[in-house]
Amino acid sequence: MPTPIDFYFDFSSPYGYIAAEKIDALAAKFGRATDWHPVLLGAVFKETGMVPLTAIPIKGDYSKHDFARSARFHDVEFRMPEKFPIATQTPARIMLWLKAADPARAVRVATALLRAYFVHGIDISDADHALAVVAKQGVDRAAARAAIGDPAIKDALKREVEAALARGVFGSPFVFVDGEPFWGLDRFDQVERWLARGGF
Amino acid sequence: MPTPIDFYFDFSSPYGYIAAEKIDALAAKFGRATDWHPVLLGAVFKETGMVPLTAIPIKGDYSKHDFARSARFHDVEFRMPEKFPIATQTPARIMLWLKAADPARAVRVATALLRAYFVHGIDISDADHALAVVAKQGVDRAAARAAIGDPAIKDALKREVEAALARGVFGSPFVFVDGEPFWGLDRFDQVERWLARGGF
Repeated sequence: MPTPIDFYFDFSSPYGYIAAEKIDALAAKFGRATDWHPVLLGAVFKETGMVPLTAIPIKGDYSKHDFARSARFHDVEFRMPEKFPIATQTPARIMLWLKAADPARAVRVATALLRAYFVHGIDISDADHALAVVAKQGVDRAAARAAIGDPAIKDALKREVEAALARGVFGSPFVFVDGEPFWGLDRFDQVERWLARGGF
Repeated sequence: MPTPIDFYFDFSSPYGYIAAEKIDALAAKFGRATDWHPVLLGAVFKETGMVPLTAIPIKGDYSKHDFARSARFHDVEFRMPEKFPIATQTPARIMLWLKAADPARAVRVATALLRAYFVHGIDISDADHALAVVAKQGVDRAAARAAIGDPAIKDALKREVEAALARGVFGSPFVFVDGEPFWGLDRFDQVERWLARGGF
């Protein structure tokens, strides 16, 4: 069995969202599974001294234009949220909590959360809003609310972010194929060739 | 006549170098000419508060790995220069000086300078080394040396960088197709679709 493709993303990352809409089909094309890892770019940026893309002069304006154009290019529905960026502990904790029991379900719920934010502008950093989204996916609202505040889940997310950093993750999306690192939606063409040829 | 594609690059930018090896063929596929503009990323980074890619923790190491992999992906010869990054006033001034008389020749000489640096590790920030490279392209060495120190050429480069910044250029390579901005070698797939469809 080939190893799964590790897929790292932040729930507030537009390129991470578009990549999330693509990664499972890309992996499946080569008989691969995926392993989704929510990370917190805020914590990652602290390590690298980086700032959110949209906060950079000149580059920030271009980025907003490029988010929308890249979504059209990849045929993914996208609307720039009014509140951006957002803290993503809440959706990340819900995802990690679900993942422990059922990774495939965690991916479905994560996808619903990403679409809620990047298509419908719902502020998923807010627990009530995030819970309304996941409840529609059949997740028990009270159990999910408890998970958001559960010290064990908080700790699991902290460890996930630390492990990502230790592995060299510095942005979203970030993919590993058999240990080879790829940063960015715009490396998916290289990811595809790597999967097809086993490296190049 | 369709307008030429504006191509901005810094002589010390690995992705700019790979893009320089690709842009003319891409443009020609759609019956377009190109207009090459050397810029100084140092001056650009001052405006945006950015730093050279390789100076960023974690991301820097990945970038060096990605330069080489992206060159292989695009089938372009590449060897990471020992001295990196370098100041690029010297090659940029030579190019602007040549461009005034013969843009096509300026592109050929610029390509020779880029290959000297990114394939053979020649430090083209050094006037003697840069002049040796351009002399092999039939450029008069004494005239080129005079151009490097010519206040009018220095001023022309300054104006070129200011015009680039005013247009929103914040990195290398940077391309405009009929006013539409594309940053990065990894947007060449979008540049191609834009050229094919007149936008998307």
